[in-house]
Amino acid sequence: MKKSHFPIGLVAVVVMATSEKLTKADEGMWLFNNPPRKILKDKYQFDATDKWLEHVQKSSVRFNSGGSGSFVSADGLVMTNHHVGADALQKFGDKDHNYIRDGFHVRTSAEEKRCHDLELNVLMSIEDVTEQVNAAVKPDMTPEQAFPARRKIIAEIEKKSQDETKLRSNVITLYQGGMYQLYRFKRYQQAAFYGGDPDNFEYPRYDLDICFFRVYEDDKAVHPQHYLKWSKAGAGEGELVFVSGHPGRTDRLDTMDELHYLRDRGFPYLLQRLNRLEVLLSSWSARSDENARKAKELLFGVQNSRKARVGGLAGLMDPYIMAKKEAAEKTLRDAVANDPKLKDAMSAWDAVAKAEKVRGENAKQAALLESGTGFMCQQFSIARTLLRAAEEKPKPNGERLREYADSNLAPLEFQLFSEEPTYNDFEILKLTDSLTYLAEQMGYDNELVQKVLAGKSPQQRAYELVSGSKLNDVKVRKQLYEGGAKAIDESTDPMIALAKLVDPAARAVRKIMETQVDEVKRQAYAKIAKAKFAVEGTNSYPDATFTLRLAFGVVKGYEQEGQHIPFQTDFAGLYQRAEEHHNKFPFDLPPRWVERKDKLDLKTPFNFVCTADIIGGNSGSPVINKEAELVGIIFDGNIQSLVLDYIYTDDQARAVSVHSSGIIEALRKMYEANDLADELTGRKSEAATQ
Amino acid sequence: MKKSHFPIGLVAVVVMATSEKLTKADEGMWLFNNPPRKILKDKYQFDATDKWLEHVQKSSVRFNSGGSGSFVSADGLVMTNHHVGADALQKFGDKDHNYIRDGFHVRTSAEEKRCHDLELNVLMSIEDVTEQVNAAVKPDMTPEQAFPARRKIIAEIEKKSQDETKLRSNVITLYQGGMYQLYRFKRYQQAAFYGGDPDNFEYPRYDLDICFFRVYEDDKAVHPQHYLKWSKAGAGEGELVFVSGHPGRTDRLDTMDELHYLRDRGFPYLLQRLNRLEVLLSSWSARSDENARKAKELLFGVQNSRKARVGGLAGLMDPYIMAKKEAAEKTLRDAVANDPKLKDAMSAWDAVAKAEKVRGENAKQAALLESGTGFMCQQFSIARTLLRAAEEKPKPNGERLREYADSNLAPLEFQLFSEEPTYNDFEILKLTDSLTYLAEQMGYDNELVQKVLAGKSPQQRAYELVSGSKLNDVKVRKQLYEGGAKAIDESTDPMIALAKLVDPAARAVRKIMETQVDEVKRQAYAKIAKAKFAVEGTNSYPDATFTLRLAFGVVKGYEQEGQHIPFQTDFAGLYQRAEEHHNKFPFDLPPRWVERKDKLDLKTPFNFVCTADIIGGNSGSPVINKEAELVGIIFDGNIQSLVLDYIYTDDQARAVSVHSSGIIEALRKMYEANDLADELTGRKSEAATQ
Repeated sequence: MKKSHFPIGLVAVVVMATSEKLTKADEGMWLFNNPPRKILKDKYQFDATDKWLEHVQKSSVRFNSGGSGSFVSADGLVMTNHHVGADALQKFGDKDHNYIRDGFHVRTSAEEKRCHDLELNVLMSIEDVTEQVNAAVKPDMTPEQAFPARRKIIAEIEKKSQDETKLRSNVITLYQGGMYQLYRFKRYQQAAFYGGDPDNFEYPRYDLDICFFRVYEDDKAVHPQHYLKWSKAGAGEGELVFVSGHPGRTDRLDTMDELHYLRDRGFPYLLQRLNRLEVLLSSWSARSDENARKAKELLFGVQNSRKARVGGLAGLMDPYIMAKKEAAEKTLRDAVANDPKLKDAMSAWDAVAKAEKVRGENAKQAALLESGTGFMCQQFSIARTLLRAAEEKPKPNGERLREYADSNLAPLEFQLFSEEPTYNDFEILKLTDSLTYLAEQMGYDNELVQKVLAGKSPQQRAYELVSGSKLNDVKVRKQLYEGGAKAIDESTDPMIALAKLVDPAARAVRKIMETQVDEVKRQAYAKIAKAKFAVEGTNSYPDATFTLRLAFGVVKGYEQEGQHIPFQTDFAGLYQRAEEHHNKFPFDLPPRWVERKDKLDLKTPFNFVCTADIIGGNSGSPVINKEAELVGIIFDGNIQSLVLDYIYTDDQARAVSVHSSGIIEALRKMYEANDLADELTGRKSEAATQ
Repeated sequence: MKKSHFPIGLVAVVVMATSEKLTKADEGMWLFNNPPRKILKDKYQFDATDKWLEHVQKSSVRFNSGGSGSFVSADGLVMTNHHVGADALQKFGDKDHNYIRDGFHVRTSAEEKRCHDLELNVLMSIEDVTEQVNAAVKPDMTPEQAFPARRKIIAEIEKKSQDETKLRSNVITLYQGGMYQLYRFKRYQQAAFYGGDPDNFEYPRYDLDICFFRVYEDDKAVHPQHYLKWSKAGAGEGELVFVSGHPGRTDRLDTMDELHYLRDRGFPYLLQRLNRLEVLLSSWSARSDENARKAKELLFGVQNSRKARVGGLAGLMDPYIMAKKEAAEKTLRDAVANDPKLKDAMSAWDAVAKAEKVRGENAKQAALLESGTGFMCQQFSIARTLLRAAEEKPKPNGERLREYADSNLAPLEFQLFSEEPTYNDFEILKLTDSLTYLAEQMGYDNELVQKVLAGKSPQQRAYELVSGSKLNDVKVRKQLYEGGAKAIDESTDPMIALAKLVDPAARAVRKIMETQVDEVKRQAYAKIAKAKFAVEGTNSYPDATFTLRLAFGVVKGYEQEGQHIPFQTDFAGLYQRAEEHHNKFPFDLPPRWVERKDKLDLKTPFNFVCTADIIGGNSGSPVINKEAELVGIIFDGNIQSLVLDYIYTDDQARAVSVHSSGIIEALRKMYEANDLADELTGRKSEAATQ
């Protein structure tokens, strides 16, 4: 998946579920505790047993950097996409080691590279807490009262669970408030990079987008109870397959007003920001390899977001798609209007519309001040976290900003104290640009802007702030964090001072967004969801929320401009295409692949497509067969899949995977990584590392 | 110069002159008929004779594609930057010939490549027509009356001159209405590409940014009366040098209100558009070499504009610069307030402020509809030209839109009937994006937008328009052009239909901009200019207008972050830097340069800097010594020169040139182009080609 990263600068919304007619299509990003059992049974005669589901669920892994993966060996190997693992890879590189460009493999565990701040989560259990949450939020509360009341009960549920189970516990909002579930995760904070190669044949689809981590606990390789066995044959044409992963966000059941907001304001605003960043980072990267190395991960994320949003905006401007959405909304609203039992939902659409209006009035400020697009700089983020931690931690758990609740402190500290290197030249570049952007967007003469710039040009100010700050030093951060309010009050660090300056306005706009937008929409969507359940039944799935989902589909080609696109590619096709293009960019092969061509069985499948319902965040998701064996790994969707944000279609939209057989063939013949291939395919009975 | 291209999507303004104290600095982009004789005499004991000036003037060449150059041989060779010539180079390439990437050299005239639509202009004479223009515009006219009256008299002057002299004649507005001058040009429409190489060592400055054209007339090589002789020694440290070229635009004497407009609206709006285009074109280019070839020229122009505007915006956000501008304005306004003779100018600043307000309200519409950023597509531009030609040509000359006046028809037809190839895939890409942009900017539900999209998505609509149009065929264009209104009325070409649909709104907003913004500002700036002349004397130069100017300065290094940057680089430095970076991107050398290193005299100067006052458009300008011999060619300004848009400074700002000796050394030793070197240095007495 090339769109795994969450949008930057757009205050996130979680939206509600679809429940369109699901009888025929391979639609859906299903909850593991509400799987599409009936559809699978009726259409594919497949019985999704509890045991099968538990095994798949507990083999699946979420990357905190934004992506999916799975345990694939008895000795704790996790497989994901190279582009998901690249974040970790970038962070342990330095000016003499560009692992993203050059690749990285180990032969022994001693060579493995410990990751700075990679956290992996495995979903262990799900518990419905909808009644508990709803009981705490009284119907007669104003949004300003309802929001903190809900925050409080959620923090309490999470803390209780965490204390009792020692598992990371998060209450997940589904159906945008139609349902609340407590997810408990096992967290792994020790991972080492095992291997991956940037041979990323991006266009069209001959792509070995994989890499491996080994997960440790107490400095010992983990032996997970559940991991996916490797399929001998891999995926075949017409075969039913499943995708278990973490789709990031869909907007399928947005009201028309919300879609119009995204079309007219949200996406265009976000895109101009992404375009700006892409140009900034690309042109800086072009100046030296070292710049490129430092900027690579951020640039990659920006490009992914941009691609996804360009596609999303195209969908929102497609009259065919929008007419379908509009008809569906009309059907539901007519049903609500005609059924007195549903009258509660009557005003919900207008409430969303009104909230979108407030959002329009505040989104820019929220993005700049609270989401930090006006202060895009590592040291500023750290300063803000330190400042807020000092203010929030003394408060009762339930009254804190969400990210400072007890249940979220561990991952927050893990990030805050990460030894990930910071590069001042890169930070000055970003901060100069974002201070300029702040001045453009809020107005150069704006009082806060003038205070922020302090009589300097954005460039001078950024230089003075970054070079004057001591927050690159993890020891300094720890002192300030542990010193609490007193230490923060006394700090003369210029970034802490800046964070203090900005925080009142940032908190104010956050409060407006939380109470007048998010809370209002949450209540409204809950009513719409209820009406939908009443009208269409509850056999549905919620919109994507970067939590674990199960999708399914069939391995199958498609027609495009009168041409049949086959279900899979093979190594022979890779070489044929390179030859047709005289091995020229972007179809050129790395030297290794040219030299070792003869060693490969060229008929081995390389990539394949299937109809499963995926979206950004599914990057690295395992593709499995009925026996829960691994047959592939998701790494992208085709161009036609970009509309999946709003609507499922299997006309042409396809998920694209690396084929399990292609992986093994490449590992053995191209990389001579027989140990790894043996570990994956179970040829080695003893543990690879201890 | 890396900023030679005019901004896209910003309605151009021509602004007024500086006349700050010029006693010490090498400031100024001087008119050839008002040269800085006194300064040159006093400071450098140099006598700029009429003969010297005429020789330099008539050796100088303006490229219609946006850049400068000069005749450099008796047989019609013109030298400019590779990046200026690249436009022509790109247009005669095809999928099997990427001359921009691979370079191009000829050994005989038979191999020269005829350029599709390159037009070169040489300024032959200047005549002041201020009184004539002003006499036709009565003081009691409203702006709505004054604008057409001025347009009429200018068209008449130009036509009369053209009929009498057969020279292209254009009335140039200087000091934003303080002065009008009739410029007569000799036009050359036959040029062939002689040679140039993309070895463009961009960073920091080891750059052989040159290429050559041979100019023809009646299919014979031109023997120009004036051309620049090659200097034997080239530029030396401390030497007085001159730059004769076509600076595109400066904003030095903008009022503070106008600068604030640019800071707060103009530049940010333009930059978001440029960023968007850069991302669009870069990502498309990354998909194949052939895409990259097609998009190269436009992408390059966009990047140049973007760089210049980022730098310009930084200047506008620099309190130091803005305080200087503000103080200067206050001084003048105080003088006006205290001198009853100048009271006419009292209201001028407010008039500009008011015009800027109107501009703010209409700039977006003007950019989208009239400047065509909403319809960025070759066939659309052609359709609009055909439509408007049919409407305008039957009108009396003085009443036509400016570009359809008799004096402008020849270049218009030259472009319209150019055989430059058009690529539908590229046009669909741009039109899809610009229709999307149109919908974002004007609102998707806007009536005109809905009519333009005609019930399709932007992508579908762009496909249908581009693939349905016949305007790629020059024969079809000629038929429609010659067929006039009747042919246009009867045309069923979808692009003609689109142009018809958009034109009423486009013309309406153009009229507002012309009368309520441009005309009001022209009158106001004329008053300010008059006051300035009264207060500060008339020894000044007008802001840049992409017309021929003379700048001067000294070959001289500068200090940067405590380091002395020497006045020149040499070939040895080029190899040393490549070595330091292990010959890695972007410091890598082309194979030819690696292989032939030993042939070079490594001490030969390569690039050098001087204090001359230049800006985008000066790209390719000859740098000459007191004897009017060529000592270099401008190709860029350093990063500190970006503020020259607003204010001259020689603290650090420098013009960057290729050294004449470096050119000859590279031609002889690296490219074995001895014929060419001989022709340039006059070693060959007979004509190279006939």
